[in-house]
Amino acid sequence: MRIVGRSMLSALKRLSVSHQNQTILARSSSVRSAQRNPESQSQRSVHSQFGTMSLPERKPFTPDFFFRQLFDGESSTYSYLLADLKTGEAVIIDPVLEQAKRDAQLVKELGFKLKYAINTHMHADHITGSGWLRELTGCQSVIAAASGAKADCHLKEGDHVDFGSHVIDTLATPGHTNGCMSYVIKEQGCVFTGDTLLIRGCGRTDFQEGSPKNLYENVHSKIFTLPDNYRIYPAHDYKGQLESSVWEEKRYNPRLTKDLEEFIKIMENLNLPYPKKIDASLPANRECGVYDIPKE
Amino acid sequence: MRIVGRSMLSALKRLSVSHQNQTILARSSSVRSAQRNPESQSQRSVHSQFGTMSLPERKPFTPDFFFRQLFDGESSTYSYLLADLKTGEAVIIDPVLEQAKRDAQLVKELGFKLKYAINTHMHADHITGSGWLRELTGCQSVIAAASGAKADCHLKEGDHVDFGSHVIDTLATPGHTNGCMSYVIKEQGCVFTGDTLLIRGCGRTDFQEGSPKNLYENVHSKIFTLPDNYRIYPAHDYKGQLESSVWEEKRYNPRLTKDLEEFIKIMENLNLPYPKKIDASLPANRECGVYDIPKE
Repeated sequence: MRIVGRSMLSALKRLSVSHQNQTILARSSSVRSAQRNPESQSQRSVHSQFGTMSLPERKPFTPDFFFRQLFDGESSTYSYLLADLKTGEAVIIDPVLEQAKRDAQLVKELGFKLKYAINTHMHADHITGSGWLRELTGCQSVIAAASGAKADCHLKEGDHVDFGSHVIDTLATPGHTNGCMSYVIKEQGCVFTGDTLLIRGCGRTDFQEGSPKNLYENVHSKIFTLPDNYRIYPAHDYKGQLESSVWEEKRYNPRLTKDLEEFIKIMENLNLPYPKKIDASLPANRECGVYDIPKE
Repeated sequence: MRIVGRSMLSALKRLSVSHQNQTILARSSSVRSAQRNPESQSQRSVHSQFGTMSLPERKPFTPDFFFRQLFDGESSTYSYLLADLKTGEAVIIDPVLEQAKRDAQLVKELGFKLKYAINTHMHADHITGSGWLRELTGCQSVIAAASGAKADCHLKEGDHVDFGSHVIDTLATPGHTNGCMSYVIKEQGCVFTGDTLLIRGCGRTDFQEGSPKNLYENVHSKIFTLPDNYRIYPAHDYKGQLESSVWEEKRYNPRLTKDLEEFIKIMENLNLPYPKKIDASLPANRECGVYDIPKE
């Protein structure tokens, strides 16, 4: 095995120190200053088309709001279990079939009552867990009417979904599919964007009535107009990123910071492979995922 | 493809409703009641050795505290980028070598100054990113003195690490390895447990001076004594779980809810395979991960 950075290693040996029950303070910088990269010492500033404004302060979740992000490694899908800690009423956004038992177990352990299993859209890459969770927990399944999928409740823009004292506002954000919705919880300062807006990316627009123009316009008019400090929770990420913010995506999304014409060009030239699981996922998701549910 | 749950599907068709700009309320339950599982309708309660106490309310992060969990899919490692939003000073806990460029890019985009790359212990399953982040951002590397690994700063229990106005308290929690530490941020109500305490699990104790007795005693005396609503952020999870809480692990950890004798028996009979990457990881991590850094 080849060792690189020998000069750094000898510097490390020289600098290695053991502190005695001390606070490592910024001002005790004699050790650090020798090694600091000058660039990292510059004042906090961000250079972009939006100027040098800093990342805004967090809008904290309220004490009675439970939030738990969950992951399915096979499809790189994020699900979100949300609850009112006072009443125990809970919802899950974008559950995955293969994780339904895990999710139902967690709901039970936490003493919650799962009220709704809500989909942001009719997924093409995995089968929704909402049908199976319905059997396991007695919850209701929810999806946009425009999706064309079966569910207990069909949503359109302006509907509200509540659990305990918390309210989800619904935005129609078609573009990836015709039935895509984004879910906003104003009091908590967050938005669940499904495949409409991903972290430094967005969902593909080349099947299921996809439209790059619609996606672009909906993101710009309905998501990028939310306050900068709103946290963005997408349905997927493939690089180990778990969340973003309106502030970040307005500045750093490599596709959606372009103008509409360039965005459409990008989306029309992605040349992505045919989704591996689409032929199994779409028929199942039209039936709320109640298709070949594994017995174990 | 076999369709299961036909009775449920016909029920779905019967129940499928489209709401007109309405709030879906718990009390509009006529649709739901026919399908509810009686068990899920019971009052919110949790039955365990700790009684029926409910999950406690959240201790919210303060508005000036930035928190971003990150994931490395190859090693199933979580890293945590934390920052003071007023000063931009940031730290990262348990960075991974292969993700160092991603993490440095994020630090740059957010306008942060990375002050410390902190390890919870000398990892056996992946190479730390702290050495490379040190080169990329000018931060300092930090690890427990008891780990035997090189770093800019060596910690022992009672030391504090600060970034902006935020302070990390350090707890020595050996057991998985001799140099394991857990990091507590009291003001934010959270603890980073490394491999000492995992979600419904714990790190193995069969190498690197591992000791099931030490692990058990440290978890019970130092982590399970934290307030119930403290969030637990581990170094790994293999089932798509992203966080837990003291309340949950005290009730549902299948190993650590046992008595010491039974716990030791469990740990001595795990019969786990030899860690795939240990022969590469330990020598590299002893040198702060500055070993065969990929050029691209």
